[in-house]
Amino acid sequence: MAAEKVKNYCFGIDVGGTTIKLGLFDRAGNVLDKWEIKTRTEENGKYILPDAAQAVLTKMSDRGLRKEEIAGIGIGVPGPVGESGIVPVAVNLHWGKVNIVKEMEEMTGIHTKAGNDANVAALGECWKGGGEGYKDLILVTLGTGIGGGIIVDGKIVTGSHGAGGEIGHSHAEDAITDPCNCGNCGCLEQVASATGIVRLAKEELASSDEASSLRSGEVSARTVFDAVKAGDALAIRVAERFGKYLGKALAVFACVTDPQIIVIGGGVSKAGPVLLDYIQKYYRQYAFSACKDTVFALATLGNDAGIYGCAKMVL
Amino acid sequence: MAAEKVKNYCFGIDVGGTTIKLGLFDRAGNVLDKWEIKTRTEENGKYILPDAAQAVLTKMSDRGLRKEEIAGIGIGVPGPVGESGIVPVAVNLHWGKVNIVKEMEEMTGIHTKAGNDANVAALGECWKGGGEGYKDLILVTLGTGIGGGIIVDGKIVTGSHGAGGEIGHSHAEDAITDPCNCGNCGCLEQVASATGIVRLAKEELASSDEASSLRSGEVSARTVFDAVKAGDALAIRVAERFGKYLGKALAVFACVTDPQIIVIGGGVSKAGPVLLDYIQKYYRQYAFSACKDTVFALATLGNDAGIYGCAKMVL
Repeated sequence: MAAEKVKNYCFGIDVGGTTIKLGLFDRAGNVLDKWEIKTRTEENGKYILPDAAQAVLTKMSDRGLRKEEIAGIGIGVPGPVGESGIVPVAVNLHWGKVNIVKEMEEMTGIHTKAGNDANVAALGECWKGGGEGYKDLILVTLGTGIGGGIIVDGKIVTGSHGAGGEIGHSHAEDAITDPCNCGNCGCLEQVASATGIVRLAKEELASSDEASSLRSGEVSARTVFDAVKAGDALAIRVAERFGKYLGKALAVFACVTDPQIIVIGGGVSKAGPVLLDYIQKYYRQYAFSACKDTVFALATLGNDAGIYGCAKMVL
Repeated sequence: MAAEKVKNYCFGIDVGGTTIKLGLFDRAGNVLDKWEIKTRTEENGKYILPDAAQAVLTKMSDRGLRKEEIAGIGIGVPGPVGESGIVPVAVNLHWGKVNIVKEMEEMTGIHTKAGNDANVAALGECWKGGGEGYKDLILVTLGTGIGGGIIVDGKIVTGSHGAGGEIGHSHAEDAITDPCNCGNCGCLEQVASATGIVRLAKEELASSDEASSLRSGEVSARTVFDAVKAGDALAIRVAERFGKYLGKALAVFACVTDPQIIVIGGGVSKAGPVLLDYIQKYYRQYAFSACKDTVFALATLGNDAGIYGCAKMVL
């Protein structure tokens, strides 16, 4: 009992293709320290876990923390993670099969849990971010692609193939015939990510000669939503199409897990509340009657969602 | 500890609009007794729970079972059920707000849990039916409507509005303009239930003069799949359209919870394995790469799935 009581700290480690983000947390979820190291992907990424383990051990030494005080290490990686902490493959890390939990525990002597990066971000937003105070949540991360994480009763839905929350690859559009990165055609990611928004904008621009601020300069998710805020009619049509695709898809997902809250994050969410307006409009249209009042919120933790969720996994 | 050990039995009670099915189970899931009583819906269904409680107490008396030997009573009802066992409304039972757990515990002195009927059926099929041996499952019940239940890690996903697994009301077809019972238009239930199959068949029959066995006699889900088995080209087109709607929808649901197995039950499933062929063909086309090998099976417990799931809730 006494030994349990002193486990007041934990580490969250979010491994990305370029950098490894690390955080030292207390039990209440306060970040006591936060730093980054480079992700060394050379030689099939063999240095990644040793680098992370060393970073943890060095930090403990610097702060005079003993192993007995650490509740655990949570680690998130860009790839599917099995229940036992084994990753079959993680392309961005140049990894084949890696047993994350076993390796980290051997190197640090500290209890470790591993999860998919999008899933742990969902847990982080549920714990201390846009979904704080809720226990049933869907996180949608709108970036170059679409990531997602499903939280049911405060826990990540990992899925039997580690594909729980892979909502970016749910089918959304029959008319699309060019393949998604996943190999299928018509994925949600192809029409509602930052890349998808550019696709829709280019289609609208090509379909008429209508004046639009998007005809000069770069077309990006940011410039589209800037134009929406300025009242640009063509950009507003793009936002409506985006909102219909995503709102309709979220209404379908809500028939599965019926979340209390849907949190929208990723680079596209920097557009702000206007983004939620377009998504919610169509969500409410398509949602089952009991679910029409589901709460929508923007993510608040940004790139730190991963380390928060990793920490929460082991607390 | 000794007191725990003797809790070797439980009751499962599946309350339907016409009959209440009851089962007495042992811990291993063997049905020791199974019987039905009438559902008395008069006077706002005020007799339903007392009748069920009395049926349990009478059975215990008949068999000489003591309360100390009963692990609990699981009860399933056709309506949303909150976590605390409160039903806000159950139209088929003529109920307004009813606190099932409180009332049953007061009348029997036995620990009670309550769940939605489609959800407990999913738990039953997961425990002792088509999904036995799995812990992550989606059950689809194809009857007049479409019911569903989601099991994650061996537990029912109830959802924050009791709408977890309400997959019959996921949006499936933009072109439909007549409303579903739920008020929305284009629900999966409108195109892939028994009623939906008849809709598709009538559309195919009206669109040409092509010969088909469906032109004489009744058009039903049963006659459509009988015609499919006999090689009727028009019926096969109906089955393809049905399979595409349902297979595509299931592929989307699999991006959310990534089940090990999808179990198909309800009256339409009497068509047998041919039904799965049409669903799986399109599931595989639309599913995310990691999920294409998800197992499909027919439900095996029929109308008993509910009492099995109710029993499992309290074991």
